[in-house]
Amino acid sequence: MGKSKTTFNISKTENFSEWYSEILARAEVTDIRYGVKGFVVIRPWGARIIEKMYRIYESALRRTGHDPSFFPTVIPEENFTKEAGHIEGFTPEVFWLENKQGDEKLALRPTSETAMYQMYSMWIRSHRDLPLKMYQRANVFRYETKATRPLIRGREFYWIEAHNCFATKKEAEAQVKEDIAMTEAVMHRVFGVSFLAMKRPEWDKFPGAEYTVGSDCILPDGKIIQQPSTHMLGQHFSKAFDVKYVDEKEKEKFVYQTCYGPAISRIMASVIATHGDDNGLVLPYTLAPVQVVIVPMYSKDSEQKIGKVANSLNEDFFEEQIESLVDDSDKRPGEKFFHWEMKGVPFRIEIGERELDSGEVNVFIRDMKEKVLVKLENLVEEIKNLGVEYDARLIAKAGDSFNGRISDCKDKKEIKKTLDSGKIARFNFCSVGADGKKCAEFIEKDLSARVMGIRADLNETASGKCLFCGEKAKEVVYAGKSY
Amino acid sequence: MGKSKTTFNISKTENFSEWYSEILARAEVTDIRYGVKGFVVIRPWGARIIEKMYRIYESALRRTGHDPSFFPTVIPEENFTKEAGHIEGFTPEVFWLENKQGDEKLALRPTSETAMYQMYSMWIRSHRDLPLKMYQRANVFRYETKATRPLIRGREFYWIEAHNCFATKKEAEAQVKEDIAMTEAVMHRVFGVSFLAMKRPEWDKFPGAEYTVGSDCILPDGKIIQQPSTHMLGQHFSKAFDVKYVDEKEKEKFVYQTCYGPAISRIMASVIATHGDDNGLVLPYTLAPVQVVIVPMYSKDSEQKIGKVANSLNEDFFEEQIESLVDDSDKRPGEKFFHWEMKGVPFRIEIGERELDSGEVNVFIRDMKEKVLVKLENLVEEIKNLGVEYDARLIAKAGDSFNGRISDCKDKKEIKKTLDSGKIARFNFCSVGADGKKCAEFIEKDLSARVMGIRADLNETASGKCLFCGEKAKEVVYAGKSY
Repeated sequence: MGKSKTTFNISKTENFSEWYSEILARAEVTDIRYGVKGFVVIRPWGARIIEKMYRIYESALRRTGHDPSFFPTVIPEENFTKEAGHIEGFTPEVFWLENKQGDEKLALRPTSETAMYQMYSMWIRSHRDLPLKMYQRANVFRYETKATRPLIRGREFYWIEAHNCFATKKEAEAQVKEDIAMTEAVMHRVFGVSFLAMKRPEWDKFPGAEYTVGSDCILPDGKIIQQPSTHMLGQHFSKAFDVKYVDEKEKEKFVYQTCYGPAISRIMASVIATHGDDNGLVLPYTLAPVQVVIVPMYSKDSEQKIGKVANSLNEDFFEEQIESLVDDSDKRPGEKFFHWEMKGVPFRIEIGERELDSGEVNVFIRDMKEKVLVKLENLVEEIKNLGVEYDARLIAKAGDSFNGRISDCKDKKEIKKTLDSGKIARFNFCSVGADGKKCAEFIEKDLSARVMGIRADLNETASGKCLFCGEKAKEVVYAGKSY
Repeated sequence: MGKSKTTFNISKTENFSEWYSEILARAEVTDIRYGVKGFVVIRPWGARIIEKMYRIYESALRRTGHDPSFFPTVIPEENFTKEAGHIEGFTPEVFWLENKQGDEKLALRPTSETAMYQMYSMWIRSHRDLPLKMYQRANVFRYETKATRPLIRGREFYWIEAHNCFATKKEAEAQVKEDIAMTEAVMHRVFGVSFLAMKRPEWDKFPGAEYTVGSDCILPDGKIIQQPSTHMLGQHFSKAFDVKYVDEKEKEKFVYQTCYGPAISRIMASVIATHGDDNGLVLPYTLAPVQVVIVPMYSKDSEQKIGKVANSLNEDFFEEQIESLVDDSDKRPGEKFFHWEMKGVPFRIEIGERELDSGEVNVFIRDMKEKVLVKLENLVEEIKNLGVEYDARLIAKAGDSFNGRISDCKDKKEIKKTLDSGKIARFNFCSVGADGKKCAEFIEKDLSARVMGIRADLNETASGKCLFCGEKAKEVVYAGKSY
């Protein structure tokens, strides 16, 4: 992969794996050459997307009453062992620090329940301190033993974790719904990534939770990728960490807790995989670090004049908070076009003598690879409209593709066929309680697929028998291949 | 320290240490009860200030052509040992991870030169790739063995590090000046914290640097606290990490490097220590998480009307991007006043029947503890003006106090007197080269003070003899007590 290579055209649908690796490198999103398994460098183009994603997600959290905070990256071993299910689930994944001078053993946080809840037990005294809704932007660390993949599965990732406390179970249940709605509002309706809100089977819930709702997205190769999940912790952790409040009647009670964890770097992987095409990145207008690139087409006689118009346009965009850039490098125009298409800049404008004469410019639209003619005087306003249309189009296209990848299956053969063709299978299943685990294990072994769970956002009624054990089917489940 | 305590009044000047600890707890900036030495929790009020500081600092970095990036938190041992001065300086402070399954030994970054420069060596090929100016927002970890203090000296801190590469030494020197100017533009002129830009003595430079310029601030107890520093790395690291470029004449050369490190959490300590008073926090208008608090003074007859006006005012502020809040809690007005004064909210407005009748409100101004009468219809505009004045006043007051704490000293007795009274001493000194180290050690041992260095922003001419060894004085140095 040399710098001089100016073609891309790897088929995303036919060879997603190569496409994904190549696009991350060529669009300068990440660099995998850091030399430590599971740790990648996020380059400026990637960092600028991540920053925008953080801002949007954090503002959604603030709007729903969550306060920001920062907790230490390290967690003492003692805290970590307080909730039995949690320690069992996470211990194999923990990075420990080398002991210094007999200090207590410290873990790098894989998630922060055990860091935060000891503090909550000091901060919460009365029902007036509830609800407590708090989040932090943080890096977390997990010792993945499976094959790692940039942004999708690594040993360090960039995430947000929200941890809430409530007086009643009812309020905690409402929070789970609010979290699902937030995933819909941000990940789907802003970032354009479709998902299924799945209540996980009993055997697949978060260590220490009563139940877990995951958001499952699909990659172009048909593999399921789990995005933000919400855990109903009930009182498991509040009992372990002694998080109590005194109610209106002076009675001491344990709080009910929920937590929610959008992994920003992983969501970026879905954004890239969902919208990108065989020419490179395609980014929602809202997330693109550069929204409009202006390419001056200099000619001998009017070089100065063209430069002046390009810069003045650039200022006009700036004033309207549109992120634009004049590409004044000494590359050939074709190279510039290729470069910014690869990077997923939504709009490109060429300014040359012809445009100055006619007072009109062609706006190249990245996702459709089409041009529209716009009067220079309307350009700034028109870009705003085109930007809104752009995002609506990406979201609709991704949604159609996603919906087309869910198939109802009536027997095992159909399930196999569905999974093998890169789709999600929907079928009647005995149970997502402990008694369904055997059938799920069969699916895992025989079909290399995972039972994702049942819909958390709607009630689907099962009928007939489980396609695997023949017992009465109590649930409609979804299954897909996963990383 | 119970919740019911509604007095503060600890003297900042007479008992800074107690004042500082108490204010961090009472204003809910940090919580020191996390239970691991050197690691504190940043509570929402502190986190919101930190977020604002990050935004302002990052925008200053972008404006001067720096790109954001994210590098891994862990650094392989091998990288870490490549620059001899660096490894010697940092090794005692490094946290190491426990080895897993024979992987390479990993350090938690204490700073990221050795993480970033190996990548720079892959990214930089030609003079056209220069200058490369990049920063990251990151947490860093140092195993401090001295007494730790929240935000001032800890084992984890919240910082930014910018790492730049240039073709020539001259450009690198210009970057050092740009960094000093950035500290002036952001830390002084926005955050209101005065400093001296000091070129460090030879024995006190950054491990691996040619020279270091530190920004020294002073705490109310007279102790020096080092804020952003810039290091001229020359070619030390580029040679160790093989960061080369091919110039216009096809010749291969090593780049010149600089790095700059504002520690946001530590700068917040200076902001708090500089502006706070005996009633709590005082925050620059620009940094305050809440800029205006509206306290409705309900009376029986007009409760609804008052609430309506308060909320409508709140909306007016929001539209003009002024961060306001209606305190509708069931606390008594006096408790509310105390609470928001403690938190350093710049302006408070009470809205009651009287205000509705007269169409005028009193704006309580936190730093001066005075009220001004403003017409309701002009309130939003007036708050903007008052905000600008507020920050100008804080900066001027802090600057006067800072300048009054630098004293010229003619002999050792005067130096001792100056230092003992919580001031910075300025005097003639033999040398900040290696040959001055002996006199500096004497100062450290005998006066418990540190030679901060010589002014980096102006040339001061020495005269006479060194007050310690009697040799010819080559420099005018500054010394102060430090943490």
